[in-house]
Amino acid sequence: MRELWASCPVSPYNFPMKAKEIALAVGGQLFGDPEAEASKPVPLEEAGPGTLSFAFGRAVDKPLGVVVTDRKPEEFNAEAVILVSEPRLAMAKALELFVKEPREPGVHPAALVHPEASVGEGVYIGPWVFVGRGAKLGRGVVLEAGAFVGEGSEIGDETYIGPWTYIHPGTVVGRRVRVGPGCALGWDGFGYALTSEGPVKIPQLGRVVIEDEVELGACVTVDRATLGETRICRGAKIDNLVQVAHNVVIGPGSVIAAQSGIAGSSRLGKGVVLAGQVGVADHISVADGVIVTAKSGVAGDLREPGVYSSGVPARPRLQFLKAISLFYRLPELFERLKRLEERVNEEENPRKAR
Amino acid sequence: MRELWASCPVSPYNFPMKAKEIALAVGGQLFGDPEAEASKPVPLEEAGPGTLSFAFGRAVDKPLGVVVTDRKPEEFNAEAVILVSEPRLAMAKALELFVKEPREPGVHPAALVHPEASVGEGVYIGPWVFVGRGAKLGRGVVLEAGAFVGEGSEIGDETYIGPWTYIHPGTVVGRRVRVGPGCALGWDGFGYALTSEGPVKIPQLGRVVIEDEVELGACVTVDRATLGETRICRGAKIDNLVQVAHNVVIGPGSVIAAQSGIAGSSRLGKGVVLAGQVGVADHISVADGVIVTAKSGVAGDLREPGVYSSGVPARPRLQFLKAISLFYRLPELFERLKRLEERVNEEENPRKAR
Amino acid sequence: MRELWASCPVSPYNFPMKAKEIALAVGGQLFGDPEAEASKPVPLEEAGPGTLSFAFGRAVDKPLGVVVTDRKPEEFNAEAVILVSEPRLAMAKALELFVKEPREPGVHPAALVHPEASVGEGVYIGPWVFVGRGAKLGRGVVLEAGAFVGEGSEIGDETYIGPWTYIHPGTVVGRRVRVGPGCALGWDGFGYALTSEGPVKIPQLGRVVIEDEVELGACVTVDRATLGETRICRGAKIDNLVQVAHNVVIGPGSVIAAQSGIAGSSRLGKGVVLAGQVGVADHISVADGVIVTAKSGVAGDLREPGVYSSGVPARPRLQFLKAISLFYRLPELFERLKRLEERVNEEENPRKAR
Repeated sequence: MRELWASCPVSPYNFPMKAKEIALAVGGQLFGDPEAEASKPVPLEEAGPGTLSFAFGRAVDKPLGVVVTDRKPEEFNAEAVILVSEPRLAMAKALELFVKEPREPGVHPAALVHPEASVGEGVYIGPWVFVGRGAKLGRGVVLEAGAFVGEGSEIGDETYIGPWTYIHPGTVVGRRVRVGPGCALGWDGFGYALTSEGPVKIPQLGRVVIEDEVELGACVTVDRATLGETRICRGAKIDNLVQVAHNVVIGPGSVIAAQSGIAGSSRLGKGVVLAGQVGVADHISVADGVIVTAKSGVAGDLREPGVYSSGVPARPRLQFLKAISLFYRLPELFERLKRLEERVNEEENPRKAR
Repeated sequence: MRELWASCPVSPYNFPMKAKEIALAVGGQLFGDPEAEASKPVPLEEAGPGTLSFAFGRAVDKPLGVVVTDRKPEEFNAEAVILVSEPRLAMAKALELFVKEPREPGVHPAALVHPEASVGEGVYIGPWVFVGRGAKLGRGVVLEAGAFVGEGSEIGDETYIGPWTYIHPGTVVGRRVRVGPGCALGWDGFGYALTSEGPVKIPQLGRVVIEDEVELGACVTVDRATLGETRICRGAKIDNLVQVAHNVVIGPGSVIAAQSGIAGSSRLGKGVVLAGQVGVADHISVADGVIVTAKSGVAGDLREPGVYSSGVPARPRLQFLKAISLFYRLPELFERLKRLEERVNEEENPRKAR
Repeated sequence: MRELWASCPVSPYNFPMKAKEIALAVGGQLFGDPEAEASKPVPLEEAGPGTLSFAFGRAVDKPLGVVVTDRKPEEFNAEAVILVSEPRLAMAKALELFVKEPREPGVHPAALVHPEASVGEGVYIGPWVFVGRGAKLGRGVVLEAGAFVGEGSEIGDETYIGPWTYIHPGTVVGRRVRVGPGCALGWDGFGYALTSEGPVKIPQLGRVVIEDEVELGACVTVDRATLGETRICRGAKIDNLVQVAHNVVIGPGSVIAAQSGIAGSSRLGKGVVLAGQVGVADHISVADGVIVTAKSGVAGDLREPGVYSSGVPARPRLQFLKAISLFYRLPELFERLKRLEERVNEEENPRKAR
């Protein structure tokens, strides 16, 4: 068991990197000392000599170590400046350098792996993990403490399943997927026949399919389909506490921020972005490339790409209460305006009606 | 331990069913071959000979196996047609046929069951389950891996508690209840005295009561009462990621969709339906049979049955921004209209004031 | 192992308290029998002789045991009346008397505590707890069943971590903190570079810091920073299912109700109150003492203390639908009003334009 304890480094980050290595990784243009070393990446506010920092859209006037920027190099007092054109992508690539592989392979003795499960090479299985009968784990899979992989599920190569996450029997998870802690994949879709005697459960016999390179945050719930599939397509990224209902399809590369919910059978296209706390009603179609801003409710199909919004920005309470009370008097307002228009019309086209 | 591994089938579904068996179960009228066999239920898009499918409100023009419908039998090219009047209820009953009992009884050796707990017959207790001192488990209870049943709690007959779900000491759960993974029943109500020195916790000494046949989805939180009870009444169905605050009462047969929240001490009547992401403020009363549409905020009592809504449907961003900016100019608009009405009045009732 | 089983009482509450003890604890003025005993605190509706109850803002006309109130003592028929000026604070202090210490110390044999972790005195570590290499647990820490404390994390004195809660390596948690079940502290911030090839993950190398006396409810997610820290300051109280994104700072003593979410890099001041289902957009600043009502969306800085709102109260559906359809005709309305004003102006200042 020693090697399992030893497998996760206290610091999951690498030793210092050189400016020239970072420049190479991000595909940027290097100014200054190519041998300058950055011990670790820090926020710009905390940056100084020997650190890596990022200055996008602004310069700072203090001594820096290695700085990645889209501004002019001469604006900085740094050991090395790396000039890039796509700041966030450069940041992604630079930080990637500092991340170590988190786990060495092994199966913890406190895990339960069914003898009829299939386990690929180089798998890490932590304590209190359950792998059910007939489950298939690909090469290099990491199942953190308490990951539950139900009977007959499939987990693709190099996929990471977080602690205390539940995967229902029969779920299919692709390769290089990352699932956070506390998720529930494949729990019952919320389907009931509403009768005069109360709601009657419609058994949910479908499954969940998560394609390659999807990421799910913490406490995400993805319900299995009534029949057929709930599917999250390749490369979609889903934040914490998001609800994906039964029979939903989320298109490839879509990005869904925290606490959003997509109701039953709705389909998001490719590259759709939902900001936080968005709701999408059931049986809705959302076109490729649609962006929906935070807290919006999507109540009908969105057939064209574009940015969609709803929801009222916060204002001082009195201002809001005044406006909202008048909001409910809009019908009266329209009526009064119409009557007034008629009276002015009468005055201008005099006396016909009288 | 072998029987515990063996207890959960890789496929939780039954062998093929015959058309006559399905017709009997759903109480429908059978046309075609009563011996026709359906190997499994599938979505209509994937249906073909040898399958069971459901065609509600529409027919399809391809060969089918057994089809359950509310349309005319002659519209289908199927081995057997089952005509029903209540489609969703029929679907519930038909799919029920295909579900196997998921678990054979037994107590996993990696579970911790207190010697002073009372355990009914036919109970399944999975690995890493905790059953505290004085807890009572009824007949046929299923506690999945990592279910935590606190000291002195009661779990009624045939109730299912999902993986990694927490049940606080002293909670009462009824019969035939189904609780999903990752739930927290009985955690602290959110009560603080707000003082000039900051918030001071009000200890929460009440409990949670879940009545018979309630269902809770994944990651549902139900807080215990400050004093007395938080209660979810018989047959209520609650979707994923719903928050039920302290001292709330949810009436029998109510249906609450994902990500809705009910604040402290509010009471929902019988058969209330809250769609997704609804919020109900604290100390609110909602009458029997009220339906609240998605994303609405219920800020006052709803005393009459009916359908209630609020929240703005998503529109193209520019359209929304224009309207919302004018929304905050409504007071000005009403003022201008009023002035104009006065001027037209003056013109029509001439010159008095001049 | 016996002492671990025995450590949690079936009733977590104390024996009866006397009126004089309660009066002393709450700092109230005592009327009636100082020796009157209250066996347990109950809701006012269930109160009677021998109980403790609270009557704030109203009296009741039935026999009571000990009653704490802000009304006149002579309005009650009670064994003892305790008059207080701050009702909720008095309730907090009175109920505190009834709460027992929940756990005796010990380490459950089914826990995994790394030999290089540092464990303070009087710690309780339940079954299936993971404490990683280099982690530091202060004096009197309670780690409930399934608490996961990652490598190198620090947990301060007398802090309680709930069941099945995940704490990422490198997280810092202060003293007397209370974290509910199913939380995820320190999971990946939701950061991607959006490229034409799809979203590219920005590794998240920062950490989470939770200061002293913070409370987090059930299923709360707090993401670690991209670089630097996500910080929840001293004494802040956070309800169930709340999302705190990367690099957020929540000021001391703030109170955040259920299902609210704060997006990346936003900063709440001291004593901010967010009611339920509030959303705060990213990179927003909220001043000390701001109160935001339920379901509001905060889309810009709130620089002054005060009460802020947005979101539409629920109304009968038809009423809402009529108003909302006119809401989107506000631009037309303003235009029509303007034209009418011009025509009336022309009539009053006659014929110039003709």
